[in-house]
Amino acid sequence: MAGGAGERISGIGGGPAVVLVEPQLAENIGMVARAMLNCGLDDLRLVRPRADWPNEKAVAAASGADRVLETARLYPSTAAATADLNLLLATTARSRAMTKWTLTPRAAASEIRRATNAGSRVGLLFGKEARGLGNDDVALAQAIIAIPLNPAFSSLNLAMAVLIVGYEWRLAAADTTEAVAAAASPAAVLQLPKETEPATAEQLQGLFEQLESELDRCGFLRIAEKRPIMVRNLRNLFGRAGLSAQEVRTLRGIISCLVAGPRRPRGGSGAA
Amino acid sequence: MAGGAGERISGIGGGPAVVLVEPQLAENIGMVARAMLNCGLDDLRLVRPRADWPNEKAVAAASGADRVLETARLYPSTAAATADLNLLLATTARSRAMTKWTLTPRAAASEIRRATNAGSRVGLLFGKEARGLGNDDVALAQAIIAIPLNPAFSSLNLAMAVLIVGYEWRLAAADTTEAVAAAASPAAVLQLPKETEPATAEQLQGLFEQLESELDRCGFLRIAEKRPIMVRNLRNLFGRAGLSAQEVRTLRGIISCLVAGPRRPRGGSGAA
Repeated sequence: MAGGAGERISGIGGGPAVVLVEPQLAENIGMVARAMLNCGLDDLRLVRPRADWPNEKAVAAASGADRVLETARLYPSTAAATADLNLLLATTARSRAMTKWTLTPRAAASEIRRATNAGSRVGLLFGKEARGLGNDDVALAQAIIAIPLNPAFSSLNLAMAVLIVGYEWRLAAADTTEAVAAAASPAAVLQLPKETEPATAEQLQGLFEQLESELDRCGFLRIAEKRPIMVRNLRNLFGRAGLSAQEVRTLRGIISCLVAGPRRPRGGSGAA
Repeated sequence: MAGGAGERISGIGGGPAVVLVEPQLAENIGMVARAMLNCGLDDLRLVRPRADWPNEKAVAAASGADRVLETARLYPSTAAATADLNLLLATTARSRAMTKWTLTPRAAASEIRRATNAGSRVGLLFGKEARGLGNDDVALAQAIIAIPLNPAFSSLNLAMAVLIVGYEWRLAAADTTEAVAAAASPAAVLQLPKETEPATAEQLQGLFEQLESELDRCGFLRIAEKRPIMVRNLRNLFGRAGLSAQEVRTLRGIISCLVAGPRRPRGGSGAA
């Protein structure tokens, strides 16, 4: 059921369940719901929440992620909340005196994807706001996710912890769908707005020739031995900008305008 | 100064400045401070915050990250807040009808590290809660950071956006060995040659003001209702080029030269 809802909401589906153990503040549950839906997660499970449930403060803090709250389920124990899951990962800020596999969120994301693809159902355990998970809850998990933040200030908001793990899961998940993969690709792209026509090399050449010709005329390129390097630098500069055809036309208009100098008001001739 | 404080607090130092443009809620500023310190960032700049400042609600929401709030600085404009910075990245959820370099948070983290190592000062721009950055603020940035989350629910809490970018920056910062950094590095963007001093936002502003003033004089910007969009497009165009300080001087010289018009040969005066 959760998988179906996940597909409907997020377009990905099959995301891990988020299990909050004894969350103290309804606002934090709402913020968790929002962070989950940001990442395309929708299976929220609450173990003994301190606040009444359902809760208006949670709805307000969810900022529109109501669906996640509406389908959230309550459980009397962590064991009950995770009974149907195959792989449990406990998220923690402080280190534990336990022998456990410890993963970064990024490594965990790969592991979750691998497990999910193999048919496993995965759950992420998060403890109460101030104290984190108890050792008995951590013991239920196969591994720990340790979020590598500032050791001098590791007090992480509950929803922030959910977001970090969910964000890494989403990026790892995105690698499987081509459309999202492009968005998640770690390479920079020069994003042209739709219907923007990039300039052709010929159009760029026309711009460069006009600019250089005017710079010759006004004396900017008058030192002969420096001219080649100055021309090359200018071409590099405008080349880096990835100009559109329209922008080339604009720049050519600007050069012409600057050269022509101040317009004299000539009574309406500009309207022609 | 910010760098020194950063080293003291985070053990990393030299992290990017976080610039919040017109934040609406004091609680969100506090949560941003907490998320920043989680990531080892401490240079917080506020442009026209709506709430009174300093603010008790912000302190409460910061959960101990008071130091970031205490050293936060207020500015009357985005331009003022970023005047000393060399590389500005605008974080945005919705796509823009602007031609800009667009980076994932991960690619941006590499770029920030590279720029910082080369001596640049970097700023991350975040807009107001519901609406994000205005187009004029985006136009000040050399590139956009687009956070790849659920397109069906992309309403991201302000502090969450800061956390994602800060988290990626911290992970990239942790890759201190050059070999690892090189292997993990995405395609290089806006790569300036060694010993090239990148322009500051203030230097860029000076270029823009000179250009726009000359374009007003020659009539290029004479149609009042088109002026704002034309100005913004020009700033975007030059912003994309990632100009060096020297290139800004060159472009300013070019504008002056084009406006001054042809040099008259005056018998040897050019040799002086």
